[in-house]
Amino acid sequence: MQLAYFHVAADVPQGAEPDAAVVIDVLRATTTIAWALNNGAEAVETFADLDQLRQSAAQWPESSRLMLGERGGQRIEGFDLGNSPVAVVPEQVAGKRLFMSTTNGTRSLQRVRGVQRLFTLALPNRRAVADHLLMDPPEQLWIVGSGWEGAYSLEDSLAAGALADLLLNAAADEACVVNDELTAALALWQQWKHDPEACLRQASHGQRLIGLGDHDADFRCCAELDRLSVVPVQVKPGVLCAS
Amino acid sequence: MQLAYFHVAADVPQGAEPDAAVVIDVLRATTTIAWALNNGAEAVETFADLDQLRQSAAQWPESSRLMLGERGGQRIEGFDLGNSPVAVVPEQVAGKRLFMSTTNGTRSLQRVRGVQRLFTLALPNRRAVADHLLMDPPEQLWIVGSGWEGAYSLEDSLAAGALADLLLNAAADEACVVNDELTAALALWQQWKHDPEACLRQASHGQRLIGLGDHDADFRCCAELDRLSVVPVQVKPGVLCAS
Repeated sequence: MQLAYFHVAADVPQGAEPDAAVVIDVLRATTTIAWALNNGAEAVETFADLDQLRQSAAQWPESSRLMLGERGGQRIEGFDLGNSPVAVVPEQVAGKRLFMSTTNGTRSLQRVRGVQRLFTLALPNRRAVADHLLMDPPEQLWIVGSGWEGAYSLEDSLAAGALADLLLNAAADEACVVNDELTAALALWQQWKHDPEACLRQASHGQRLIGLGDHDADFRCCAELDRLSVVPVQVKPGVLCAS
Repeated sequence: MQLAYFHVAADVPQGAEPDAAVVIDVLRATTTIAWALNNGAEAVETFADLDQLRQSAAQWPESSRLMLGERGGQRIEGFDLGNSPVAVVPEQVAGKRLFMSTTNGTRSLQRVRGVQRLFTLALPNRRAVADHLLMDPPEQLWIVGSGWEGAYSLEDSLAAGALADLLLNAAADEACVVNDELTAALALWQQWKHDPEACLRQASHGQRLIGLGDHDADFRCCAELDRLSVVPVQVKPGVLCAS
């Protein structure tokens, strides 16, 4: 199992594709996806473009759909929920399809949408995704961060290191790190593994959320390691279900 | 002093310029520049393009010029030296202008060539550059890595963290980290500060050099922390002298 990490979608090499990929957007898209599927959502469909999201949602029965999205920290007008992982409780999401607006996360999901086995990961379902991969280890695994507007993000790198740390420990001689990005992500995980929430709060995007106020529950939720057993897997391009 | 680190030239923001910048190419351009100037070279002029290098060198008296460059680990035909920092000994370089071919390093130097105070840094002159900056602290300092063919490199990030570690300790409340890239570089430095050579050898570009064979002296030289007191400063675009 050759493990590589790419900071953002634009860093993912053109051409050769791996047999598995994991997309990470710790603050907060992939954390929200994990919690929504854990809480019974039928599926999560992600969109960068709001008009496309509205068009797709309109084709779904109103009683079994939800639209999720924020701009500048405010829920989008006409949408049911923002992008917070603490809002996707069972009473809201069970049995429903979630149409979710994300910018950075969607770009990374789109970049690797052709990969045969595609998962999303956040800190709460890190071990679940790792265990799933280890049951049938891919030859090549690409871990793809989402970053922020095309730039590196600390929190996605932390989670990449957290995943790789488990895989390397479990697979021993069967797993190796093949790029510098992942070596550095592992160092990040070593530094913060006992307090991932501190890392999320120090990250630029964490600072932005702190500036908006009232995100303490989100930080706790996004930093809570190995809480969930759900593995979000792409069932068709852009659509994620619990495996 | 606001400190930011950019992995490669392409990550450097357009528009606003800082009052100081430091370019890093640990393996091996900025290490060779530091040693060459330390050993009495009159100046080092860097080029990405070999034809431009030859044209500029041709305008210089033959007795006081040297051409440095490698492709695929071999000295370029007609050139005096390769790119190794252990080759720029005083008997070779004293009093001479060095015309140096680099690919990754030159791209980063060009990207920030308009910055008023521009330095190059490697591990051997880390403290010298830090002390120089602290004598007259800039408001904004951009640390720019060179990477490898546009991608992130571990060794440049290590050196960025090494520089920032000194600046933050010395300037205390006067210095702060303003992007995630530098926070991560500091974690890297924490992990490897007691054995930077191990980090250089683990890096992808270190692995390439190991594959070429016979680079042990280069690794030792590139990893030797705070050995030199030389501060390479840009005196006109692309031309570096000892300050």
